[in-house]
Amino acid sequence: MADLTGYKGRALEFLTKARAEVGDVLEAKTEWGAVTGTLVPRYEHADDGHVILKLKSGYNVGLAVSKLRSATVKAKGEKPSFAPPERPGPRPGLPKVLIVGTGGTIASRVDYRTGAVRPAISAGELHSLIPELSDIANVEPEIMFNVFSENIEASHWAKLAARAAKAAGEGYAGVVVTHGTDTLGYTAAALSFALQGVPIPVVLVGAQRSSDRPSSDATQNLIGAVSVAAGAPFSGVYVAMHLGESDDAVAVHRGTRVRKNHTSRRDAFESVDAPLAAVWRPEGIEAVAPGLPKRGDRSGFKPAPRFDRRVALLKYYPSMPGSLFAAAAKGMRAVVIEGTGLGHVGSRDLAAIRAFVKAGGLACMTSQCGRGRVDMNVYDTGRDLTRAGVVPLEDMLPETALAKAMWVLGNSATAAEARARMVENLAGEMTARRFPG
Amino acid sequence: MADLTGYKGRALEFLTKARAEVGDVLEAKTEWGAVTGTLVPRYEHADDGHVILKLKSGYNVGLAVSKLRSATVKAKGEKPSFAPPERPGPRPGLPKVLIVGTGGTIASRVDYRTGAVRPAISAGELHSLIPELSDIANVEPEIMFNVFSENIEASHWAKLAARAAKAAGEGYAGVVVTHGTDTLGYTAAALSFALQGVPIPVVLVGAQRSSDRPSSDATQNLIGAVSVAAGAPFSGVYVAMHLGESDDAVAVHRGTRVRKNHTSRRDAFESVDAPLAAVWRPEGIEAVAPGLPKRGDRSGFKPAPRFDRRVALLKYYPSMPGSLFAAAAKGMRAVVIEGTGLGHVGSRDLAAIRAFVKAGGLACMTSQCGRGRVDMNVYDTGRDLTRAGVVPLEDMLPETALAKAMWVLGNSATAAEARARMVENLAGEMTARRFPG
Repeated sequence: MADLTGYKGRALEFLTKARAEVGDVLEAKTEWGAVTGTLVPRYEHADDGHVILKLKSGYNVGLAVSKLRSATVKAKGEKPSFAPPERPGPRPGLPKVLIVGTGGTIASRVDYRTGAVRPAISAGELHSLIPELSDIANVEPEIMFNVFSENIEASHWAKLAARAAKAAGEGYAGVVVTHGTDTLGYTAAALSFALQGVPIPVVLVGAQRSSDRPSSDATQNLIGAVSVAAGAPFSGVYVAMHLGESDDAVAVHRGTRVRKNHTSRRDAFESVDAPLAAVWRPEGIEAVAPGLPKRGDRSGFKPAPRFDRRVALLKYYPSMPGSLFAAAAKGMRAVVIEGTGLGHVGSRDLAAIRAFVKAGGLACMTSQCGRGRVDMNVYDTGRDLTRAGVVPLEDMLPETALAKAMWVLGNSATAAEARARMVENLAGEMTARRFPG
Repeated sequence: MADLTGYKGRALEFLTKARAEVGDVLEAKTEWGAVTGTLVPRYEHADDGHVILKLKSGYNVGLAVSKLRSATVKAKGEKPSFAPPERPGPRPGLPKVLIVGTGGTIASRVDYRTGAVRPAISAGELHSLIPELSDIANVEPEIMFNVFSENIEASHWAKLAARAAKAAGEGYAGVVVTHGTDTLGYTAAALSFALQGVPIPVVLVGAQRSSDRPSSDATQNLIGAVSVAAGAPFSGVYVAMHLGESDDAVAVHRGTRVRKNHTSRRDAFESVDAPLAAVWRPEGIEAVAPGLPKRGDRSGFKPAPRFDRRVALLKYYPSMPGSLFAAAAKGMRAVVIEGTGLGHVGSRDLAAIRAFVKAGGLACMTSQCGRGRVDMNVYDTGRDLTRAGVVPLEDMLPETALAKAMWVLGNSATAAEARARMVENLAGEMTARRFPG
């Protein structure tokens, strides 16, 4: 059977007619000219309207089937040397871990014929890629989405939270969510609020370097994440990513405290103004922080996988026109401001903020400094903003505040309730001041 | 003579008639009732329409003179124990340093009667506060503005740059700019572009803790800044702030590389992805980085104190509606995007970005990760953005990119020139990749 992995519907029909296979060099004719390139496989969740060719330049080009006049196979690709191995049978005595895929590069296999990155979908493939996993847990992979993480948004958070909540009642020892690193922190915060009191660990994991690179952190991060999901003594939502630049440890961060603080380093993820939840090493889970919720305690678990996306995040900058706040706030129920320093904006914006709050909007203040706590009692500007009704969010990260506001608005009956919950510590997202004032 | 420091015009007239002095407890009657509080002095640049009373609660209240019916002195304040000392005569042989004040808390004196922070305006006062300065340089203070730094914007940058450029021809060995810390990094970047090739050091300095607190960093930072301005072997625009948590060193950062990375710590300022320019210690200036421009070289100095404020800075977040980009870009000539990871935004925004560029707008990409370099060749999203005309800004800080775009647009004849200059390293704001690709 022809290998046309991922193609379906109109695209599959078109390629079958052309007797093309993944890996073949195709010349495709469109109304605006001919394109020659290697046929690339598609992801499971891709649409059925496009054919993807990898050009000599290395770029992939997507051609709409509706615009294609013909395709001719110019050279046959070599047959794939790899057949997915059988899924190993479950090993009795090992905990069961659900691995939910969202589209990150982690646990992906690179097809060296085409250069395309393909998710390792089946348990068999996962076993062949990372045999260590089969010694830790009986893993059950499930691909929910296949999107770049910059396209993951509130609707995906809701589906992920609902799936993890369901898994907590299905005998899973834990859930691992593989996720692109770009917005991993936002999603971790969102799940932390939606899954308060979850009795098992829900561990988000990503890779800064894809698995075809010798420096990839994909394998180690995934082993660490599955180990935590399977065996950690604590429950809750966490992020498991490379600790430091060496290859022997995975940091476990609280979902509400973690930030991607570098574009490319493997140790880009950091717990901000908070200790690590734990560290995973091949020898086991170490340095578990005190006070984490205990695994198995179902008493406080009320999953609430609802988000209201009508929240804007706005970073203040010098010369920001007052009109920008108003434009950003339009149609929104809340605005999270990333102010300067202790939580300030220029006086140009005060009127627009006041008007938004008067009209029932929720305006919250965080700092663009990345670390530290807002304090709106020190300077006149902070006091003016407080009087205008702006809610200071202490040491909460702006990204966490955004996810929290979306969750709070999706789960509160009144504006007063939403406002009150924003300043309540629900999932470790804020800490009490050490000194009053 | 009655002490009515800072009051002028109508306010001065009203208070003189009431025989009030700074420090007196006043009962002021307005059309809506009576207010009792201690009369607080005003800053030199304050308006003449308000009287400021400090209430028992500690809050200051500003009362419009036009709304005041009467004022009665309820209790006389104690006479100020401090008279500004004579300005010491210039000491021959010492370099001359201009200190430009913009309104930060540095070099301020707290009036313990009223709790008000008053800038130390005269050389005499500065000498009485920090006598060490007189051993380093003949300092000449000049207050240009008196605004919180969150209100400093492009128009202030232009005036500061023009003043510093003038000082370079007036025999000053260096210029120190005292500035609130909130937007100090933005201003330092702006001056770096406007003063390219300046033959003397221009050193911005602030204080994270005001000088009435025992932990204040104001004195040490100012001594460090004046020392660098007076005697550093290099020229250019720098920021001098506390190094580490100990009290014996001031870090000297390049103006295009510095960021306030904590809301309140004294060592909040950090050079991002770049080495320090130097370190000041009481023993002298140490650890000078290689490659800094040499003091006294006037050959490349073409001051250009012009900024176009029509630039927006927009941080992408999950679920950001496509309409927000369009709203932020309205009326702007450029938008600096703080994308995720290597420089991405959700596909919802692509159309709006493409339209902005097609209409002649300049769209630039930086990363919200805080550290690292954008790379828009790795993933499809980056390539799509590049094809849409988005300009990747390598490892430039978003705040620096904002200031640079405002400067570039204020000093370029054509859009093509502006675009080309954005990716040219003008003032140490970006570094070449170490590895191609």
